[in-house]
Amino acid sequence: MRNVTVAATQFASGANNIDAAEALVRSAASSGANIVLLQELFETNYFCQKPLEKYFSLATTLEENPAVRHFQALARELHVVLPVSFFERRNNAYYNTLAMLDADGALLGTYRKSHIPDGAGYSEKFYFNSGDTGFRVWDTAFGRVGAAVCWDQWFPEAARIMCLHGAEILLYPTAIGSEPLNPLLDSRKHWRTCMCGHAAANLTPVVASNRIGTEREEDFEITFYGTSFIADASGQVAADMDDSTPGFVAATFDLDALQIRRRAWGLFRDRRPELYGAILTLDGGANV
Amino acid sequence: MRNVTVAATQFASGANNIDAAEALVRSAASSGANIVLLQELFETNYFCQKPLEKYFSLATTLEENPAVRHFQALARELHVVLPVSFFERRNNAYYNTLAMLDADGALLGTYRKSHIPDGAGYSEKFYFNSGDTGFRVWDTAFGRVGAAVCWDQWFPEAARIMCLHGAEILLYPTAIGSEPLNPLLDSRKHWRTCMCGHAAANLTPVVASNRIGTEREEDFEITFYGTSFIADASGQVAADMDDSTPGFVAATFDLDALQIRRRAWGLFRDRRPELYGAILTLDGGANV
Repeated sequence: MRNVTVAATQFASGANNIDAAEALVRSAASSGANIVLLQELFETNYFCQKPLEKYFSLATTLEENPAVRHFQALARELHVVLPVSFFERRNNAYYNTLAMLDADGALLGTYRKSHIPDGAGYSEKFYFNSGDTGFRVWDTAFGRVGAAVCWDQWFPEAARIMCLHGAEILLYPTAIGSEPLNPLLDSRKHWRTCMCGHAAANLTPVVASNRIGTEREEDFEITFYGTSFIADASGQVAADMDDSTPGFVAATFDLDALQIRRRAWGLFRDRRPELYGAILTLDGGANV
Repeated sequence: MRNVTVAATQFASGANNIDAAEALVRSAASSGANIVLLQELFETNYFCQKPLEKYFSLATTLEENPAVRHFQALARELHVVLPVSFFERRNNAYYNTLAMLDADGALLGTYRKSHIPDGAGYSEKFYFNSGDTGFRVWDTAFGRVGAAVCWDQWFPEAARIMCLHGAEILLYPTAIGSEPLNPLLDSRKHWRTCMCGHAAANLTPVVASNRIGTEREEDFEITFYGTSFIADASGQVAADMDDSTPGFVAATFDLDALQIRRRAWGLFRDRRPELYGAILTLDGGANV
């Protein structure tokens, strides 16, 4: 038996987000969480609502990023695994990056968001290069953990590849909510169903941590819908939050039992990679 | 606007399955269905419970199969698209095959089940070669339709590839129920969540038609759990059935509206095929 407790957190961006995030990590850790997931780009407001030059100044190198430094110390103090999402600059490239911090505070490596959205309220293609790291998993003190970022969560390929690399839990820090130009569109069920599908198809728990609160940017406004959740290995919701209350939820999984279940169910035995070539195309390739 | 009505059917195997299937197709068609999905291998009991030599004699060539002939005439009479699942023999190879019949009765082609399960009660690797057709879509009178078979429904790769080839609806004839050696395992939620995930991730409706009833084979017994359903393009259940009542459910989708929605949401724009190479491996390939 190898029980690991994961927590998903959510809070509204405000005057001191590092403190708000730290308070949630401390609460989750004191209730027994081993891995605590914070939301995407939690240091600041979600600055991608509009394409504005000034916000590039929020980017830092990995070495200089204050959140990574801050949470390395906290991870070590609390003995928790902490993925930290931040706006990374390196030379002339800018990335939506996640730094994976192990429970001793060690920086295990970074992942750069691969799938970059673009649409009213979510102008990420203005700010971010498409990530060049590929999908990553890390051997942490609490299992082999895969993590990707927000829009990546909509792509079965990302989840599958992390699981092919042996991920035992998938983490998705997120910033998603209303659509400034389409107030009738509420994507929360669609969003959740995608990730529950990844959990089910890979027999691997999924954790998503999303913002709450309303943020304004000029004439645009997004109300982030929270509903952070944890899905079990059959894709059923094991714990979830509402769309406005800050805090965290947690769930415990026996990672050894899940490994036994994965191999017995046969999904990773019965794959047919020789038939999957069209996945490497945008339009299916040759006509069928 | 291009409204298409799809129906999922379910019934228990009995003395005359062709008649039972025909009655459901007629009911669904008379209520307005354009595409009617029948369950997997509906001509007979689910013979794969145990690996028994005698059941190879159920296989026929495509040209000789009675169900394909029968339902070609019915498809033409009722002007409905009808995928027909059957046990195919060709020379020394045996396949779990689906024949796609257009609304004029034309045979558009066949698909051979790619992913073959194996476990107590589901000894399909004893009977079937792994399909060699790759994943297929067909331009029918009612849209570009993708279809795969049962266990294929657990694999995000199959759904994605059909959608990369332009599938507007995904169909999965199915035979799944209890586990003879594991009576505590009930996979129905897991099963459905996988397919709702495919619908959500591809913004494409999914239809699953499953058996009901209990079938015995020597010391084994399976109670098929039905719960046939139709998921909409955000992965939400649009119509579904219980685990024991024969009949059908239907749902209508505007395929033109769904195409507009797919392109606006950006999932097919933001894919990163150059990062998906590991999908073509069984174990992730190179270490990360």
